[in-house]
Amino acid sequence: MGPEEFRAAGHELIDWIADYRARIPALPVQAQTKPGEVAGKLPARAPEEAEPFARLLADLDAIVVPGVTQVQHPRYFGWFPSNATLSSALGDLATAGLGALGITWQSAPALTEVEEVVVEWLRELTALPPSWRGVIADTASTACLVALLAARERATDYSEARGGLQAESAPLTVYTTEHAHSSIVKAVALAGYGRDNLRLVGVDPVTYAMRPDELAKALEEDVKAGRRPAAVVVNVGTTGTTAVDPLAQRYGMWVHVDAAMAGSALLLPEMRWLVDGVEGADSLCWNPHKWMGTVLDCSLLYVADPAHLIRVMSTNPSYLRSSVDGEVTQYKDWGIPLGRRFRALKLWFHLRLDGVEAIRARLRRDLDNARWLAGQVEAAPGWRVLAPVGLQTVVLRHEPAGLDADGLNAHTLAWVDTVNASGAALVTPSLLDGVWSVRVSIGAENTERSDVEHLWRLLQHAAADAEAG
Amino acid sequence: MGPEEFRAAGHELIDWIADYRARIPALPVQAQTKPGEVAGKLPARAPEEAEPFARLLADLDAIVVPGVTQVQHPRYFGWFPSNATLSSALGDLATAGLGALGITWQSAPALTEVEEVVVEWLRELTALPPSWRGVIADTASTACLVALLAARERATDYSEARGGLQAESAPLTVYTTEHAHSSIVKAVALAGYGRDNLRLVGVDPVTYAMRPDELAKALEEDVKAGRRPAAVVVNVGTTGTTAVDPLAQRYGMWVHVDAAMAGSALLLPEMRWLVDGVEGADSLCWNPHKWMGTVLDCSLLYVADPAHLIRVMSTNPSYLRSSVDGEVTQYKDWGIPLGRRFRALKLWFHLRLDGVEAIRARLRRDLDNARWLAGQVEAAPGWRVLAPVGLQTVVLRHEPAGLDADGLNAHTLAWVDTVNASGAALVTPSLLDGVWSVRVSIGAENTERSDVEHLWRLLQHAAADAEAG
Repeated sequence: MGPEEFRAAGHELIDWIADYRARIPALPVQAQTKPGEVAGKLPARAPEEAEPFARLLADLDAIVVPGVTQVQHPRYFGWFPSNATLSSALGDLATAGLGALGITWQSAPALTEVEEVVVEWLRELTALPPSWRGVIADTASTACLVALLAARERATDYSEARGGLQAESAPLTVYTTEHAHSSIVKAVALAGYGRDNLRLVGVDPVTYAMRPDELAKALEEDVKAGRRPAAVVVNVGTTGTTAVDPLAQRYGMWVHVDAAMAGSALLLPEMRWLVDGVEGADSLCWNPHKWMGTVLDCSLLYVADPAHLIRVMSTNPSYLRSSVDGEVTQYKDWGIPLGRRFRALKLWFHLRLDGVEAIRARLRRDLDNARWLAGQVEAAPGWRVLAPVGLQTVVLRHEPAGLDADGLNAHTLAWVDTVNASGAALVTPSLLDGVWSVRVSIGAENTERSDVEHLWRLLQHAAADAEAG
Repeated sequence: MGPEEFRAAGHELIDWIADYRARIPALPVQAQTKPGEVAGKLPARAPEEAEPFARLLADLDAIVVPGVTQVQHPRYFGWFPSNATLSSALGDLATAGLGALGITWQSAPALTEVEEVVVEWLRELTALPPSWRGVIADTASTACLVALLAARERATDYSEARGGLQAESAPLTVYTTEHAHSSIVKAVALAGYGRDNLRLVGVDPVTYAMRPDELAKALEEDVKAGRRPAAVVVNVGTTGTTAVDPLAQRYGMWVHVDAAMAGSALLLPEMRWLVDGVEGADSLCWNPHKWMGTVLDCSLLYVADPAHLIRVMSTNPSYLRSSVDGEVTQYKDWGIPLGRRFRALKLWFHLRLDGVEAIRARLRRDLDNARWLAGQVEAAPGWRVLAPVGLQTVVLRHEPAGLDADGLNAHTLAWVDTVNASGAALVTPSLLDGVWSVRVSIGAENTERSDVEHLWRLLQHAAADAEAG
């Protein structure tokens, strides 16, 4: 496709996107698709001949849009916000249009240096320590794996350069809580620590935050048994209840802060208590692609000691060497992939086209909406808020009298299913202390108070209907 | 930013991209930027207030374009092709515009099922075994790490679920050649095997391909010493010379095929010899974001045994469960990240808007251009082709009489620097058998025979000038 065909098709697609975004409020939030339904509409083989662009636009309308859950919908309250602001989408379009290749500084100096500058802008905006430096990763899952690899190599004095983890005699241990995101457990497994060496430290029964005394106890036991504490993953804003673990440092362990969702809140000075003590940590990750709204995938990993990370991650083949190697940042040595997209453009466009003050105002609106909803739930007979509402997620349950545990679970799943299947809103069922609860995660870009009010009426009707049977 | 502001800015950006692509041939290929030059043009802090879109477009022109090496330029012959076709850029724009969230099938059924279908289209087009299944990863670096993690877990009967790699007594070993991509060595280190357990098997002095007898010898020695061969990485199209290792399988080792660059050639039936015997392998990775031209990042990982990969990679938190879990593909369990972009759209758009036959014709054009250039070089006095030209890369050297090894290296680096600094073309110096050589990697989307002829004249002039001093 040449530039002029692209121009014509591109204008059509821009119009299509603008129209699509405008009609999202009229679409069902949850995709109503059956397994195999989308695949069944596609041909079994790729086309030998070029197809007209109109056919692709038609398929976007007929197959793709009905086949995705509308996380940009104002009544999307599921999982966590996954905002794809249109300002950041423009930056992402510039990335594809430029087609730059990030393998070394030399291959695209601007790709590296815009990333350095924008990541530093966000460090300053979130008040992380001035000496820290950051990099854009795809997701918090990858960033956490990178952090746990860096922790492993610090604890073993760079075993990767010798016999590897398999040559270590005394086992390394990792600490977090059962409320840690699933990606933490996965990263522990992939980094080779082994599930048996992951300690799920006890939490406070009200706040669901890691208990320092329980951590101390686990550490003492492991050290006494000859094991070596290598890392603790501190959860700032857990997925289940947005619980906030206290920051802790002992035995020289690597402290990784997983603030994937909550990191956006650090843009607000009044929310900086979330990471009190962060200057004692080694790494922190948060995702602008969640609440803040830089289109997927865009996760920030900050580290206190970049030289260590680079030593763990670096390679230096002859075909990538250049005369400026000592003077510039080589982001290939800050993560797993060699080839990198120009991801910084979407952050750059997002911050510049929306402006930081407007982003802060939106986040404050969402915090306020969460407090409002929590107040409504607490005041309603039969309803309970199950965890402190420190961020924008409200965990709640409708608890009619006379139900046993199984009955309560069945009731919860029934009314949630009614809400979600209706297409009018989406919330997420989640286990808390072994019982099904419901997470209402507020913060889609276009969610206003009226949408939260609408949701609260839907929840009450669905629960009442389920109770009436 | 609302839909109408996006519409206006989006049209401007589409026009900007079309104009930019049209003027690339007039731009210098290699960025002429000094370290810190781009960063020095950007403000130290993020803007509090929104900026007008015109200012961003102006910065793209003034800061970004001069700050990237133009890998879409018709005289870009560096590293490997990194084509960002405009058809695939449209698909990528649709991805950002939709803003879908890929965490489970349920969150976006079409994201999963279009990916399944398109990956299957490409399996069929490249004649990989019909029972294999694939997934889109970001890069071959990540895909190779995933393959070596899968190999590690197969060799240890899922040690990740117990004491991890650190609890294993007999060391696991991995095999490849010194011509393997740097990401292979990195993946071995990150997966915890340790550098000491990586064997760089000897290669044929003419083809640079792994020697089966050398592999057999290394395996015998390790097995005799009580070590456990876990994986061999077979390089199909090495970065240095596009050498092709024979496929080998012994001791139940995991066989991973790294065809990052060469995989595109499998679209051509006459090139399928590259992976003769692939049905005995366990995994293969290739990058549509290289020669084929689906905009970064888009790498395909195929596996023979998906159930094993899923067991290594799976997580199942309550907030991601749904009633269809057993019936659908959950791509979160096929790689490292949980949250995934709708990457399949750019492959879908690329194949449909360009058509497979046109893509094949372009690849054949490039193979033909490489053979033509190799013929010219071989026929020119003082010039040598240093490795078989089986794909689209020609490794060459100008060897004036009377130079010792140091003198030859200085001569090569001098004339390459002249070519690259001129901005007229870009080629990559690379060490081969410890001596500097020059890689001419043909295959930018717009590189025609006339561009290769132009390059050949540039190389001859630069070498003659360097020789004349």
